[in-house]
Amino acid sequence: MPQKEALMEFLKVSSKSSPSSVAGAIAGMIKDGVPVDIQSVGAGAVNQAVKAIAISRGFLAPIGIEIVCSPSFADIDIKGETRTAIRFRVEPRYLRGTAVSSQSSDAFVGSKN
Amino acid sequence: MPQKEALMEFLKVSSKSSPSSVAGAIAGMIKDGVPVDIQSVGAGAVNQAVKAIAISRGFLAPIGIEIVCSPSFADIDIKGETRTAIRFRVEPRYLRGTAVSSQSSDAFVGSKN
Repeated sequence: MPQKEALMEFLKVSSKSSPSSVAGAIAGMIKDGVPVDIQSVGAGAVNQAVKAIAISRGFLAPIGIEIVCSPSFADIDIKGETRTAIRFRVEPRYLRGTAVSSQSSDAFVGSKN
Repeated sequence: MPQKEALMEFLKVSSKSSPSSVAGAIAGMIKDGVPVDIQSVGAGAVNQAVKAIAISRGFLAPIGIEIVCSPSFADIDIKGETRTAIRFRVEPRYLRGTAVSSQSSDAFVGSKN
């Protein structure tokens, strides 16, 4: 599944990432109008990513931005081994209603089943 | 934070829940027009919940429904101890643009910060 891979940059979150730091990064990008793609491998990392997204909602809500996320699977290569990563696309909820929604159909790419 | 608690039912996901079973439940409720509230406590449980949401996207995409989720925190009582749960509200992305969007403002309830 090499579609657009070269064009995409992921915010990589590990089990040791600080959720509030990641939340700050998410909020900053969203404020700048940039949708955020997060990648995490393993339950601990997924948990930190989800916490970061929840915290960033609190950063963005007061300025009227409500974000939503779409999780998907991706097979990635880590040191020669294939692992299943969870990716989260984070974007403003109202994106779909505006002219910026061009990438929306990508969101399903990488979903299992 | 007892707001609407009495009215809300959560799909409780544990670290032992089967993601595909939970995904089936999510897809069924969404097809019926019911937004889904998931509650999970602990990294393993959050991971299973996220996998379930990702899988359910694959169930719903072929019938033209794209879902998004909004994670939030909630302090809950488990056997007399206070634990922080992660809750996910799962709903169709286009909900906001329709007349059914009355519950949207609830989504922030329980967010930390």
